Amino acid sequence: MPDAKLLECFDNPAPQDGDAARDFVIEHVSEEFTSVCPKTGHPDFGHVTLRYVPDQFCVELKSLKLYYQSFRNEGIFYEAVTNRIADDLNTAMAPRWMQVVTDWKGRGGIRSTITVEIGKHG
Amino acid sequence: MPDAKLLECFDNPAPQDGDAARDFVIEHVSEEFTSVCPKTGHPDFGHVTLRYVPDQFCVELKSLKLYYQSFRNEGIFYEAVTNRIADDLNTAMAPRWMQVVTDWKGRGGIRSTITVEIGKHG
Amino acid sequence: MPDAKLLECFDNPAPQDGDAARDFVIEHVSEEFTSVCPKTGHPDFGHVTLRYVPDQFCVELKSLKLYYQSFRNEGIFYEAVTNRIADDLNTAMAPRWMQVVTDWKGRGGIRSTITVEIGKHG
Amino acid sequence: MPDAKLLECFDNPAPQDGDAARDFVIEHVSEEFTSVCPKTGHPDFGHVTLRYVPDQFCVELKSLKLYYQSFRNEGIFYEAVTNRIADDLNTAMAPRWMQVVTDWKGRGGIRSTITVEIGKHG
Amino acid sequence: MPDAKLLECFDNPAPQDGDAARDFVIEHVSEEFTSVCPKTGHPDFGHVTLRYVPDQFCVELKSLKLYYQSFRNEGIFYEAVTNRIADDLNTAMAPRWMQVVTDWKGRGGIRSTITVEIGKHG
Amino acid sequence: MPDAKLLECFDNPAPQDGDAARDFVIEHVSEEFTSVCPKTGHPDFGHVTLRYVPDQFCVELKSLKLYYQSFRNEGIFYEAVTNRIADDLNTAMAPRWMQVVTDWKGRGGIRSTITVEIGKHG
Amino acid sequence: MPDAKLLECFDNPAPQDGDAARDFVIEHVSEEFTSVCPKTGHPDFGHVTLRYVPDQFCVELKSLKLYYQSFRNEGIFYEAVTNRIADDLNTAMAPRWMQVVTDWKGRGGIRSTITVEIGKHG
Amino acid sequence: MPDAKLLECFDNPAPQDGDAARDFVIEHVSEEFTSVCPKTGHPDFGHVTLRYVPDQFCVELKSLKLYYQSFRNEGIFYEAVTNRIADDLNTAMAPRWMQVVTDWKGRGGIRSTITVEIGKHG
Amino acid sequence: MPDAKLLECFDNPAPQDGDAARDFVIEHVSEEFTSVCPKTGHPDFGHVTLRYVPDQFCVELKSLKLYYQSFRNEGIFYEAVTNRIADDLNTAMAPRWMQVVTDWKGRGGIRSTITVEIGKHG
Amino acid sequence: MPDAKLLECFDNPAPQDGDAARDFVIEHVSEEFTSVCPKTGHPDFGHVTLRYVPDQFCVELKSLKLYYQSFRNEGIFYEAVTNRIADDLNTAMAPRWMQVVTDWKGRGGIRSTITVEIGKHG
Repeated sequence: MPDAKLLECFDNPAPQDGDAARDFVIEHVSEEFTSVCPKTGHPDFGHVTLRYVPDQFCVELKSLKLYYQSFRNEGIFYEAVTNRIADDLNTAMAPRWMQVVTDWKGRGGIRSTITVEIGKHG
Repeated sequence: MPDAKLLECFDNPAPQDGDAARDFVIEHVSEEFTSVCPKTGHPDFGHVTLRYVPDQFCVELKSLKLYYQSFRNEGIFYEAVTNRIADDLNTAMAPRWMQVVTDWKGRGGIRSTITVEIGKHG
Repeated sequence: MPDAKLLECFDNPAPQDGDAARDFVIEHVSEEFTSVCPKTGHPDFGHVTLRYVPDQFCVELKSLKLYYQSFRNEGIFYEAVTNRIADDLNTAMAPRWMQVVTDWKGRGGIRSTITVEIGKHG
Repeated sequence: MPDAKLLECFDNPAPQDGDAARDFVIEHVSEEFTSVCPKTGHPDFGHVTLRYVPDQFCVELKSLKLYYQSFRNEGIFYEAVTNRIADDLNTAMAPRWMQVVTDWKGRGGIRSTITVEIGKHG
Repeated sequence: MPDAKLLECFDNPAPQDGDAARDFVIEHVSEEFTSVCPKTGHPDFGHVTLRYVPDQFCVELKSLKLYYQSFRNEGIFYEAVTNRIADDLNTAMAPRWMQVVTDWKGRGGIRSTITVEIGKHG
Repeated sequence: MPDAKLLECFDNPAPQDGDAARDFVIEHVSEEFTSVCPKTGHPDFGHVTLRYVPDQFCVELKSLKLYYQSFRNEGIFYEAVTNRIADDLNTAMAPRWMQVVTDWKGRGGIRSTITVEIGKHG
Repeated sequence: MPDAKLLECFDNPAPQDGDAARDFVIEHVSEEFTSVCPKTGHPDFGHVTLRYVPDQFCVELKSLKLYYQSFRNEGIFYEAVTNRIADDLNTAMAPRWMQVVTDWKGRGGIRSTITVEIGKHG
Repeated sequence: MPDAKLLECFDNPAPQDGDAARDFVIEHVSEEFTSVCPKTGHPDFGHVTLRYVPDQFCVELKSLKLYYQSFRNEGIFYEAVTNRIADDLNTAMAPRWMQVVTDWKGRGGIRSTITVEIGKHG
Repeated sequence: MPDAKLLECFDNPAPQDGDAARDFVIEHVSEEFTSVCPKTGHPDFGHVTLRYVPDQFCVELKSLKLYYQSFRNEGIFYEAVTNRIADDLNTAMAPRWMQVVTDWKGRGGIRSTITVEIGKHG
Repeated sequence: MPDAKLLECFDNPAPQDGDAARDFVIEHVSEEFTSVCPKTGHPDFGHVTLRYVPDQFCVELKSLKLYYQSFRNEGIFYEAVTNRIADDLNTAMAPRWMQVVTDWKGRGGIRSTITVEIGKHG
């Protein structure tokens, strides 16, 4: 079951000086995401790309991996997975800006990509 | 015959809070589209890419596939197919923004791409 | 319905001198093949590659295209399509050697390729 | 000899409602363009990409192909070909916006691309 | 749990005439295979390619997909998965020749490919 | 009109000592070949690859280019062009082995490749 | 140990005339960067891309290489490496604008990219 | 020795009507540039891309090639080559806008790209 | 220092029946290999590909990774590294056949690949 | 001027035991070769690939680079360069087998590849 409590954070190591705060983007691409289609029971496979500008915290890489693995046997739609990941990460580290993109292999000849963005950037 | 009634929708699962509404883009790429050239009677083959920012509704994936299949034996020009798909999807789900792109394999040594956009985005 | 009578041939233009006959390979790749899955009724899309060493005859290109188009609304499995095309072309032009390869877009996450060869070559 | 009279048009099939006119882009890519270098007499080979937002008219595809073929034995420089095509198409269909790009294979180790744009877009 | 009983077969549709039997190769590529590392408990992701020359039987595509899915929560090493798949398919359809190739995404910076072949071909 | 007399040769510069003759392969790839379809009058575009093991002579590069250009306005089928080039080059330089491959852009959705080989190699 | 004193600079060779100063971007891509994960002790491998608009000084290429090599046996996290490099280069040459991008090979199935930018550009 | 006098120009063939002047971009890519490192004496190899919007004049292609060749045995740094080419071309044809990009093969494991821009565009 | 004692093996899981032993190839590709040039002291970076047909034993993946890491600060030439790895692995698991390929990034504009093979295969 | 005396060798580091001698292939790819066309005086640019199975000696990498650089201002044809390099390397290190491949950028729209092989291999 997806478990947001798996997410751990560490302090943003970049110098932070108020308005002149450094522009600093982190991207983590996981090519090993799988969940289950709630309609057919068949597994879905996708890539998950997380991009964010940290505020106080950065997400720890191994905890992110375990969080993604917690979706493995969960029945959940593409659109819901993507929003769920964005919400959980937003709660965990409250970044200045965040984008979550999921790319799904084809079903019935149709490939899908879902993009959720929270905050403003660039 | 193209049949817009095949299109089914489901409720947008993202949180929607008025002006601060979440930026949320859905893309579905079908590489298996075929219709018929009304002039020569020969089949046309293309890719159809749908991108949209949902408002109240999202289009259901299997119904989209069946809707695309309904063009299989229809005689219709590139430009008309693309506008027709955009109109039918706009009627079905009234998204905040939508883009329909069709890429057609070459005819007489010329490859074509048609892009229809409804609403503003980004 | 697949119609082998659509296939037309023309005389092999290469010089042919008994045992010292010229090594001469013809390849035609069609990226616009579609038939129908007899089980689900959904369309299948594939590429068909024909390679052959002609003996007395070569297949005429436009007739080959029309022959492929005759499968458009036929319910037929991957393995059967490939063998059927090989048999029809073998009957039409009796080449010294022939290979028919069909590459099919994924169904249920599995892509397939079927290769039929008649005669010996190289 | 390049012959602008070969160009034929058909009515723009998209709905057109004044200021709210639909954003609709058409792209035709020809990878089979050849003319002759007026200096050396050697043939030049290039790709021609036409992109436009139609106003009242769209260019008919087969007539575009024949128009391009009319340059086959014409001695004309890269820069002149590109401007000539843009002028002829502008005269024929008066689009809201048009871009003509020619990509030329290398001469003396230098590859060239010429881009002509008429009107504003995007 | 991997379940060989999920595999179903159908009769080889190609003409079979003793020694002159037709050369006929079938390839199915699944890019959606996952099992679990028995040592770490972390999921493994790979591609499975099956190539075979059928004798009396061909494996049915949907049953192959379900058979692959039965490895989803199984703890099993790369080398054992590949031999297990080859053994199960050999039992199910006794092909003249078969090759099973598994390609695994990197672990600790090392990507692996395992190839098992049964019988002789080509 | 194709003109074999345009072909010029120069002496093979490699040391040649009877049976121990050096293995020496020359490949020239022209991506700028065009002729005319004798049936439709439309231009055909292709790539011509010449590979050979020289005996006494090598073909001079500029003369080869002019020879290819002499096909520009000739109405001739794919299969005939390829055999004609092979015959003319064989007459001009009598290589130990020669292969001529022509790759043609698609006509009616079908791409073609013709391979003519004279002599044995490797 | 990372050693900023290894960095050497030379004078910006471009003409510099106050407000009309020339727009001049330098990019150096190193595909041979390695440091050590402070948590696991395993080596990390990445690419480092430096882009900058010089003010008075440019960084000398060989000194940059030696500076990068000084991280070879340093235990340091991705985010910290990237900020450290940006700070050291900013101190050494005070460019008008600078961007440092590090791309890291996958760890636990996740590839990462870190982008640090100092100043404004374009 | 680099010789700016080798550069020849011809009149801009596009129609020029004051403020409504046509947007017209010319790009020439040379993949055959070589100069010498003034420090080590070893040859440097790079690609040079010139993009410009002509005002009164266009640079003639063969003269550009000879100009580039004049750097062949010149000892000169990356940054200086790029600025030198931009200055010479600016003097020769005074374009409305110009960009010169040099891409250099790796030295000591570092690949470099230098971009010089003169004037404003787009 | 390279340390062959780091290599650990496990029993070959494939069925082994004398002459009819199964054809079974294992490939491990490491894209994270680095050693030091004994002449210049600069680091070398390469990819190491191990392919083998196991006899009694297979090499354990994590131990292989640690063994490769033991070359990190070793001064050793390309040719010697490759032979050393092949010798150590041959001693550790005595495979029926083994191939070790190292691909090295460029030095002085020259990329190198070294291939060592022990035993016969295929 | 090409200078074979620049080539230096070192002893083959692989174990050599008569008939059971180890199969050991070395490949060096230089993408930075240039000479001059003796006919036109224009520079030629190519890639040179050397593959060999050493007997007693291996060619030292830096000396190979300097040897290649000695062709920089030499007027010499493609075919002659390739045979000259093969002869000089054969004299310098007498390998069991050697292959020299030169790939040349296009001249007059024709790209060329010359392959010289000395001895037998594989």
